[in-house]
Amino acid sequence: MGEAQRRAVIFDAYGTLFNVEAVRHACATVAQDPAQFIALWRAKQLEYAFLRALMQRYADFWSVTRDALHYAAAATGTALDQRQELALMEAWHSVTPFADTEPALRELASRGLTLAILSNGSPEMLDRLVRATGLAGYFRRLLSVDAARTYKPAAPVYALIERELGVRPAETLFVSSNFWDVAGARSYGLPVCWVNRVGALPEQLGQQPNHVVDSLAQLARLV
Amino acid sequence: MGEAQRRAVIFDAYGTLFNVEAVRHACATVAQDPAQFIALWRAKQLEYAFLRALMQRYADFWSVTRDALHYAAAATGTALDQRQELALMEAWHSVTPFADTEPALRELASRGLTLAILSNGSPEMLDRLVRATGLAGYFRRLLSVDAARTYKPAAPVYALIERELGVRPAETLFVSSNFWDVAGARSYGLPVCWVNRVGALPEQLGQQPNHVVDSLAQLARLV
Repeated sequence: MGEAQRRAVIFDAYGTLFNVEAVRHACATVAQDPAQFIALWRAKQLEYAFLRALMQRYADFWSVTRDALHYAAAATGTALDQRQELALMEAWHSVTPFADTEPALRELASRGLTLAILSNGSPEMLDRLVRATGLAGYFRRLLSVDAARTYKPAAPVYALIERELGVRPAETLFVSSNFWDVAGARSYGLPVCWVNRVGALPEQLGQQPNHVVDSLAQLARLV
Repeated sequence: MGEAQRRAVIFDAYGTLFNVEAVRHACATVAQDPAQFIALWRAKQLEYAFLRALMQRYADFWSVTRDALHYAAAATGTALDQRQELALMEAWHSVTPFADTEPALRELASRGLTLAILSNGSPEMLDRLVRATGLAGYFRRLLSVDAARTYKPAAPVYALIERELGVRPAETLFVSSNFWDVAGARSYGLPVCWVNRVGALPEQLGQQPNHVVDSLAQLARLV
């Protein structure tokens, strides 16, 4: 496909720019089987976001994350007092960038590209995340699904990019490590790069990324 | 809530009226770890249905089920030849009713209630299922999400009940074993009975069933 000049690179947050390992560590302090606990918590966090979007019963990602935590705790027989629950939830504010995140942002910014985040996270989650990690200065905007009151991969979320930044889809590169997000962005009409850090299999959703990289360091050659 | 006189009982199919054990058995013929294989296949089958509904990229449930099978086979390193793939897919036509299914249908039908199925299954899957199990005579209609070109728990699916059967939500009892389906039907405004055969935990979706039973034998006292 003939592409317009690239003006903006838009990133997913969790798993793409930020490593959620801190949340796994927090689970290790309360759960008998931390790997099972975090897997269930994250699966329910996503599932509840999808289901609420389908039911048109939006609740923000902080609320969905807490609902998912309650389910994971009940399902694994993990009793959580208020202090422990708070510590687990706060771990989402403590996730850290991957090693390749800041160098990639710096390189792309130096080329005059507009950078932004488009995430399922609530506005407050995103704001705290980029401040805590010292990356706030790189981003023109932190776009939360909250403005569309639905969740990825629904089209109104991806439409926020043009609406809020004024860049057309063809002038954009959308970057995500989550294949369902890749599929949603492609379905909407964005050029997409899949960051496949771990050799994951593509999901069978009838959509394919335009580009695949295993590190954000490879983004510079795409724009 | 004050309820109108009950005129119709609408059932989910897979897991509610029909035991999908036959699919598990079919997996045992090809997979090294059949429990892992069927769990992944079913998780992806549902996830792909949800994601396609969110992307407004409907493909029918047969097609989604095959896509999910391809993912499960690749992810578990299970090589499937064409004959094996067909056998696994055909297992969905071989699922059998639970022991309490036909007695419950007979009892409800004897009271003059309109019975129908409302399922994510494609029209052909549902048609073959009720014919193969000898239950076709009990149902006024087999309502497939296909008519709405989306998936449960999206509201347009539940709207098919009134549109196709002419019964108002308050005159209906919707019956499902899947909590996300319970939540979707409640969110739409249907009175709902959750069939919790296995002592599952309620999902944290902000919706609660009106009734909970552990067997279809208990439905008769609700209508």
